[in-house]
Amino acid sequence: MSAPVTRVAIVGLGLIGGSIAKDLAARGVEVEAYDSNQASLDDALKSGVVSCQLDETLSGLRADLVVIATPVDIAIDVLRVLADTNRDGALITDVGSTKSRIITEAEALGLASRFVGSHPMAGDHRSGWSAARRGLFAGARVYLCAPPAASAELVARADAFWRALDAHPMAIDAAAHDRTLAWTSHLPHVVSAALALALGRAGVGRDELGPGGRDITRLAGSSPEMWSAIAAENASAIDAALAAAELEVASFRRLLSRADAGELHSKFAAARAWFDA
Amino acid sequence: MSAPVTRVAIVGLGLIGGSIAKDLAARGVEVEAYDSNQASLDDALKSGVVSCQLDETLSGLRADLVVIATPVDIAIDVLRVLADTNRDGALITDVGSTKSRIITEAEALGLASRFVGSHPMAGDHRSGWSAARRGLFAGARVYLCAPPAASAELVARADAFWRALDAHPMAIDAAAHDRTLAWTSHLPHVVSAALALALGRAGVGRDELGPGGRDITRLAGSSPEMWSAIAAENASAIDAALAAAELEVASFRRLLSRADAGELHSKFAAARAWFDA
Repeated sequence: MSAPVTRVAIVGLGLIGGSIAKDLAARGVEVEAYDSNQASLDDALKSGVVSCQLDETLSGLRADLVVIATPVDIAIDVLRVLADTNRDGALITDVGSTKSRIITEAEALGLASRFVGSHPMAGDHRSGWSAARRGLFAGARVYLCAPPAASAELVARADAFWRALDAHPMAIDAAAHDRTLAWTSHLPHVVSAALALALGRAGVGRDELGPGGRDITRLAGSSPEMWSAIAAENASAIDAALAAAELEVASFRRLLSRADAGELHSKFAAARAWFDA
Repeated sequence: MSAPVTRVAIVGLGLIGGSIAKDLAARGVEVEAYDSNQASLDDALKSGVVSCQLDETLSGLRADLVVIATPVDIAIDVLRVLADTNRDGALITDVGSTKSRIITEAEALGLASRFVGSHPMAGDHRSGWSAARRGLFAGARVYLCAPPAASAELVARADAFWRALDAHPMAIDAAAHDRTLAWTSHLPHVVSAALALALGRAGVGRDELGPGGRDITRLAGSSPEMWSAIAAENASAIDAALAAAELEVASFRRLLSRADAGELHSKFAAARAWFDA
């Protein structure tokens, strides 16, 4: 890293925060951490991944980089705590799937010169410290969203941090990020949950599904805390994507009502053309 | 097998028919086959999996079991050819994802004493002879749907055939099969295709998706020939399942329009409860 990070604080030892901690510890970086789940924290301390436990006020934090790895609504609260109590020059970043709101909050809290938002495109439907693992970010895209006032040097520090975890950081405007993610990530999550609910209501269990049905409902196993916060924060962009998906479903239903095999073939062929592109 | 099958005819050397052929050849069973794609047939002959090529009239067929492994619409045509030309006592089965229509057709063609429908719950979005592989049916559920007039001995022969491929056959009423499959298989396929079309229309490529988004759109890569035929044949049951999924999507949209994090949490939690059940 350009300015080597020797001590990192992580708030939230879930799948993402825990995996960052494990990667950093394996690279000889000191990790101090807080998690509302004491059992996760105890395990992280016992395993030597975390060398120092923080309390929820984050007082005594000595790191030169702070990673907020909580659900996106709680991340705002953590940012406020950091603005109140932590006056030194540590770089602050997060890992949330929405970026506009936290950047607005960072600016309002006077943290624009110290905050760069991150969003690693890694992880799966599992959650929690027990799912955390080394190498989770190897090869993964990480979106970096900086406040307009952020210095190039600040962004370079965030970039170097993720590169050290073998990830591929890429700077992007926060609003564009949130619009894109509504399509590429949030839409699939909501559709998977909606399908799960429809199947449940019809009395169909996941064990009755074939491999395809299990794949399409896998995201329904994701953390409700994490996803309700994302959905509420990026609601209008997700709603627009859902409306577009609804139109396509309605179009299929029209063809099904006439059992129009020819037009159905065109639809499935267009879907496969997208898949193959 | 109870009455050992020594020679099997397979019509259609796609993923399913080709995999059956490879499994049978590995067990020393003679396989004769027809496929409209001569390149697949040539390759099957050259590799020794198929020992004898049939033409599309299926004349000269000498097998004691015929497996129709084409899209479900074409399977009806093949059944007609078999009714016309093949007068001996070979057991006929198929592998299609819909069962009511082919059983009705078998009865109308006077084949009720020789036909048992099969539906192996195996395979993925890949298709064609090149995707066919040994062991595809190991551990897989295979639904068996017999015409009411079929003898127990006939069903036992179909059952033994699939058990010899290490599959788990299970008898089920054809109408119940089609209603169930509308939920467990056809609904996921149509939703995956609809999502693919919505993403394509928004200019989002599959390479921009994270692992979850890629999973949920994987079925969009399935064969349009196969899936348009299934959709047309089981249209009303699939439409009912899509209507139920639409209701759940609409319910999510209502909560998104109010950015109701609490109710969104309840939804995602209910989806995960289904996932975990």
